[in-house]
Amino acid sequence: MVILVSNDDGIQSEGIRALEEVLKTLGEVYTVAPDREQNAVSHALTLHRPLRVQEVGERRFAVDGTPTDCVNLAVKGLLPVRPQLVVSGINKGPNLGDDVMYSGTVSAAIEGALLGLPAIAVSLAAFRDFSFQVAAEFTAALAARVLEKGMPPDTLLNVNIPHLPAHEIKGYRLTRQGKRRYSEAIVERIDPRGKKYYWIGGDDLGFVHEEGTDCVAVHEGFISVTPLHIDLTNHNSFQEIQALMVPWP
Amino acid sequence: MVILVSNDDGIQSEGIRALEEVLKTLGEVYTVAPDREQNAVSHALTLHRPLRVQEVGERRFAVDGTPTDCVNLAVKGLLPVRPQLVVSGINKGPNLGDDVMYSGTVSAAIEGALLGLPAIAVSLAAFRDFSFQVAAEFTAALAARVLEKGMPPDTLLNVNIPHLPAHEIKGYRLTRQGKRRYSEAIVERIDPRGKKYYWIGGDDLGFVHEEGTDCVAVHEGFISVTPLHIDLTNHNSFQEIQALMVPWP
Repeated sequence: MVILVSNDDGIQSEGIRALEEVLKTLGEVYTVAPDREQNAVSHALTLHRPLRVQEVGERRFAVDGTPTDCVNLAVKGLLPVRPQLVVSGINKGPNLGDDVMYSGTVSAAIEGALLGLPAIAVSLAAFRDFSFQVAAEFTAALAARVLEKGMPPDTLLNVNIPHLPAHEIKGYRLTRQGKRRYSEAIVERIDPRGKKYYWIGGDDLGFVHEEGTDCVAVHEGFISVTPLHIDLTNHNSFQEIQALMVPWP
Repeated sequence: MVILVSNDDGIQSEGIRALEEVLKTLGEVYTVAPDREQNAVSHALTLHRPLRVQEVGERRFAVDGTPTDCVNLAVKGLLPVRPQLVVSGINKGPNLGDDVMYSGTVSAAIEGALLGLPAIAVSLAAFRDFSFQVAAEFTAALAARVLEKGMPPDTLLNVNIPHLPAHEIKGYRLTRQGKRRYSEAIVERIDPRGKKYYWIGGDDLGFVHEEGTDCVAVHEGFISVTPLHIDLTNHNSFQEIQALMVPWP
C-alpha cells in the first residue's frame, strides 16, 4: 500500500509529522507538501511558472507551490507508483462549513479525488496548544477502512477533530457541510506614503446552529466526518432554474 | 439595481468590457476585477498581505488580488451599497466539467453565493478570435430574469457559450457538471545550472461523453447553464460511508 500525504501548513508542520507516523503502520508513506505555509490558497494550480521540488528526507519532498500542485505533481510523476490513498493534514485549525471552499487542506484531498483516488482531509479544531494524538489515531483507523473497503467515486472525507482529551471525545458523527459566520468587515488603512490599503478581515463569529452539520458536531464534542463531492451540480434546483430561463435564441 | 462585475482575465480584458456594456441596460454596474490575469487561482483568498485598489474609471476598480478577493472587498465595503447580483466573466476559454474546481471565473461567482448573493459565471468556449456578442446578450437576458425572480439559496449559475455565430447556436440546456480529460503528464526540465524543475501540464484530451453534461451540450452547439451548489456534501453517499466507519472511541 502506498499512501500520499500532503497539507497546507507546510512540510515542517508537526501536524503532517503526526500523520506520517501513524500512516506508516498501514503502508509506504510518501510526503509531498508545500515548503511553507499556504493557508486559504484554495484549489489554486500553478501554471504560470515552473515548480521546484526538494527532497528533504526519505520519501519526503518539499514543493514551492500549493497543496493542489503537490498532489498533482506527486500523482502525475513524482511518486514511483500510483498511491492508493491521499491524506491531507493534520491542519492546525478547523475546516468546517464554508471553510471547505477556501481551505488548502481540503483542496489537497479534492485534487486526490479529481485524480480518481480516495482522499481524506483532517483538521484539528484548535487554535493553540495543538495535540495531534487523537486526530492521528482516528485518521489511521479510518484510512485502514478506506484502503480495505474503498470509497464512493468522486468523493472525499472532510474530518474535523474537537480539541479535547481522548476520553472526552463522545464519538464521531457523519455530517453535512454547515455554515460559519464571519464578520463583514474589511480593514482600511493608510500607508506611510498616504495611500490607502485593505486587509480582508473575517473574524470568527461562530456558526449557524443546524442539526446534522459538521460545525454542530465538533461544537458538541464529536468528531465530524463529512463526505464531500467534487460534482458541485445542485441537482435539486433544476426545476426552479428551469422556471427562470429565457426563451433562446 | 446594482450589479457587481468581476473576472479572472483582468480588468483590461475585452470580455469584462462586453459584460459591462450589456449589463448597464439593467442597472448601475460596478466593476471590481484583478489588475492582471489570474487563471487557475481558484478560490484563493489573500490573507497574508494587504490589498491595493486602484480606481481606473467611473465605477471601475483594479485590485492586486484574486477574483475571490475582488468580490469579497467589493461586497464588504468598496461598493457604496450591497449589489443585487454578481456576474463574472466573460472568460476567454471554457469552464466545463472539473474546470469549475480550478476556475477563477467560477470562484468569483462562488464568492458571491457565499456572501448570500445570486451569481452567474460566464465563459466563452473559444481559444482565439473571441467574439463576445452572443455571450453578452444571453447573459443580459439571464441576468434580467435572475434580478426579477431571484435564485435558489447557495446556488450560482455556470454558463458556457459555444463559439459559434448567433444563428448556429441551437439554444440552451440546463446541464450538470461533466468530466473533462486532461493528460497525466508533467514536464520535467533541467535549468541552466543543472537543477531539475517541473511544469504542470494538462493538455486537453476532450471529455467524457455523458448525456446531460455541460461538456456535451457545448460540444453539440448549445449554451450550457449548470446550477452549482456551494454545499459540497455528497448526501447520496451517507449509507455507503456509514458502512465504512470504525467504532470510536
